Amino acid sequence: MLEELKKQVLKANLELPAKKLITYTWGNVSGIDRSTGLVVIKPSGVEYDNMTLEDLVVVDLEGNVVEGSLRPSSDTPTHLELYKEFDEIGGIVHTHSTWATIWAQIGRAIPACGTTHADYFYGSIPCTRKMTKEEISRAYEKETGTVIIEEITGNNPLHCPGVVVNDHGPFAWGKNAEEAVHNAVVMEEVAKMAYFTELLSPDNIMDKMLMNKHFLRKHGKNAYYGQSK
Amino acid sequence: MLEELKKQVLKANLELPAKKLITYTWGNVSGIDRSTGLVVIKPSGVEYDNMTLEDLVVVDLEGNVVEGSLRPSSDTPTHLELYKEFDEIGGIVHTHSTWATIWAQIGRAIPACGTTHADYFYGSIPCTRKMTKEEISRAYEKETGTVIIEEITGNNPLHCPGVVVNDHGPFAWGKNAEEAVHNAVVMEEVAKMAYFTELLSPDNIMDKMLMNKHFLRKHGKNAYYGQSK
Amino acid sequence: MLEELKKQVLKANLELPAKKLITYTWGNVSGIDRSTGLVVIKPSGVEYDNMTLEDLVVVDLEGNVVEGSLRPSSDTPTHLELYKEFDEIGGIVHTHSTWATIWAQIGRAIPACGTTHADYFYGSIPCTRKMTKEEISRAYEKETGTVIIEEITGNNPLHCPGVVVNDHGPFAWGKNAEEAVHNAVVMEEVAKMAYFTELLSPDNIMDKMLMNKHFLRKHGKNAYYGQSK
Amino acid sequence: MLEELKKQVLKANLELPAKKLITYTWGNVSGIDRSTGLVVIKPSGVEYDNMTLEDLVVVDLEGNVVEGSLRPSSDTPTHLELYKEFDEIGGIVHTHSTWATIWAQIGRAIPACGTTHADYFYGSIPCTRKMTKEEISRAYEKETGTVIIEEITGNNPLHCPGVVVNDHGPFAWGKNAEEAVHNAVVMEEVAKMAYFTELLSPDNIMDKMLMNKHFLRKHGKNAYYGQSK
Repeated sequence: MLEELKKQVLKANLELPAKKLITYTWGNVSGIDRSTGLVVIKPSGVEYDNMTLEDLVVVDLEGNVVEGSLRPSSDTPTHLELYKEFDEIGGIVHTHSTWATIWAQIGRAIPACGTTHADYFYGSIPCTRKMTKEEISRAYEKETGTVIIEEITGNNPLHCPGVVVNDHGPFAWGKNAEEAVHNAVVMEEVAKMAYFTELLSPDNIMDKMLMNKHFLRKHGKNAYYGQSK
Repeated sequence: MLEELKKQVLKANLELPAKKLITYTWGNVSGIDRSTGLVVIKPSGVEYDNMTLEDLVVVDLEGNVVEGSLRPSSDTPTHLELYKEFDEIGGIVHTHSTWATIWAQIGRAIPACGTTHADYFYGSIPCTRKMTKEEISRAYEKETGTVIIEEITGNNPLHCPGVVVNDHGPFAWGKNAEEAVHNAVVMEEVAKMAYFTELLSPDNIMDKMLMNKHFLRKHGKNAYYGQSK
Repeated sequence: MLEELKKQVLKANLELPAKKLITYTWGNVSGIDRSTGLVVIKPSGVEYDNMTLEDLVVVDLEGNVVEGSLRPSSDTPTHLELYKEFDEIGGIVHTHSTWATIWAQIGRAIPACGTTHADYFYGSIPCTRKMTKEEISRAYEKETGTVIIEEITGNNPLHCPGVVVNDHGPFAWGKNAEEAVHNAVVMEEVAKMAYFTELLSPDNIMDKMLMNKHFLRKHGKNAYYGQSK
Repeated sequence: MLEELKKQVLKANLELPAKKLITYTWGNVSGIDRSTGLVVIKPSGVEYDNMTLEDLVVVDLEGNVVEGSLRPSSDTPTHLELYKEFDEIGGIVHTHSTWATIWAQIGRAIPACGTTHADYFYGSIPCTRKMTKEEISRAYEKETGTVIIEEITGNNPLHCPGVVVNDHGPFAWGKNAEEAVHNAVVMEEVAKMAYFTELLSPDNIMDKMLMNKHFLRKHGKNAYYGQSK
């Protein structure tokens, strides 16, 4: 069932330790098959070293396990909320990568300080608001999706393919699981560069026109970067 | 004698260079066999590269060498104090890992700044008080245990499985030697993230309710993280 | 065609991931054959892992593709401007390396804080001015060359073999592609050391005489460093 | 000639890239044979990757090349000054390692902030004074030795086995070349930890008594650390 998607999701999960985005079992990647509405996701608390296709869990959009003998990632409800809200998203990743997590702990959006950022993210990378007592105690992982959605709604989620969750860490996404992890790697790198830019030179935002130029030469309809088309 | 425990302790010691927690011979791991009250510990000043099961030293809780031809780690009396005081502890590790040591040198507890921390440590990671002239000159390594115990007493030591010793560096522990090293790796990572959180945004402590939520979903009796149970 | 130069340029491109100067496909290296005025450059958006000699693109100084089936790096017009302006330059590299990019984002020249810097760069490494609305919207990559040239004109470009482009990142160059990458590695290292020097001790510039001494013992006509003569 | 010493010096030189203390050809290690007064040192500007025993240069204490076809390190006169002044020293190393160099660029001694430091260095690691115009222009590398000697004279050089040279970088030494490199690795690590201690908590020096305790348990006549004796 969904063998091709499982291979993509397994490969994307294994990219997390390869790119040094995770420690131990922290973090998870999922991918969705939009034709069936089924999601393939990493099992909870399993080591990356020995993970196999069989360990992956298939769930429907309500969170029911459709295939797999292991428990899905505890963050599954967050992934599902995002898939339900944004049709453009095909893959989601959550990590505790160092520098994105530091911005999450500070509780601030990652400012757009240069073209590295603008090549992937259009404007700052939002930080979600603090969650309420009710949100935390009732359906915490689902409500984590809610506060992410609040930040993205009204924009194209592929133009800002990630957020940092307050006091927690980053979520990123993309057209598929591979692109989601790619965006998480970029977010970590721009998070680090923005941190040290801010530390020595506070409130140093990049030129708005330069931001438009860089984002649009890669993502607009007149994009001319890369070999595509 | 204690072959299984020795294998665990050797493996846990070798994790220290693998996880980049140590330089040269700095650091040591021990494990205890509660049925006999015997402790297996790294020898003093021996390189990790060539360490074998035969190099490990077995001592009783009074510090007498029961087996082994090498001198035990000079920090052995600290380990023994902790084993004697806290029955819950099965393994202990000491390192000079960079970021935990920086907090030790600053002389401050590592604040709980996010869920990465709260997944393992319930509240801040204490820093011991400065030791007195008498404590340093008389039985320094034993008294290092004393000041650690002062910080932990009254709490479940597995709910705060580590401290930083003032002007010195981190000690961590767990149910066994493997878990002790796991907790030392986590402490180093959260120490780094807390450092840079504090540097840019002083006194930024995480939401208390979120802390409870994260710690308890992994450690409370209603834990639902991972595949266990 | 230009087989020897292609080998040099391929090797220099592969040095970028080996020296950890780049993430994914960010960055590019070119080399020029002065006898024909032809430039060999990395294709746009291609992964380094699988790059071959056949992927490289040959362009003339007006940017016309002379050989190669892939589109050249989108930064090609910047490279061409520099080759046209400075005869001394035989190779050029552009990256988004972390610490040089942080200075670019801050918008400041990298100050000469020590002899590591002075062994390669004579004086601070300039940061270009912000580009105008017209420059960004019209011929952005070509105009990036213009603002770099403004900073270097009047000096020997091999005495200051690099700049940081405002809000963007570093360009470096040298007698050939290999030396260009060498200088980019050095720029990244001195950018990091200058950052932390400036953070703890602002406006700390090195002694001018010591700077002269170090630059000239490697680069002046009386140089005595290394085995060359 | 001096085959055993050459092997030690080659091995110690190759430790520099292995321990990530150097970039390219920066840095050099030497060792002395006190019975003949001959010094084996790295050649100038040669890559570590391909260095062989034959590349090493033998010089006498006046700097005359006694054996070897390559030019000795340009820093040779500094090494010779130190060997002539301090009989206890058997090996010397110079690098531009990141964090020690940052302290050199700041122009401050590396403060003793914790026991990691005190296990090897008794008190702060000095920073030399700025050199005069005459010192820089006349016999620069020899005079670099002079300003180092000024900082160490009056103390046992093995109790403070290193300095940072103002605006330049670290020199370290030891009983032999291997120990010199070991001390350079330690200096780099304590330089990093002291930097971030100082940044968040200025003027935070460790307890003097604890410093004595740690240095003397490893180095005093009643030392009890390690397996030695």
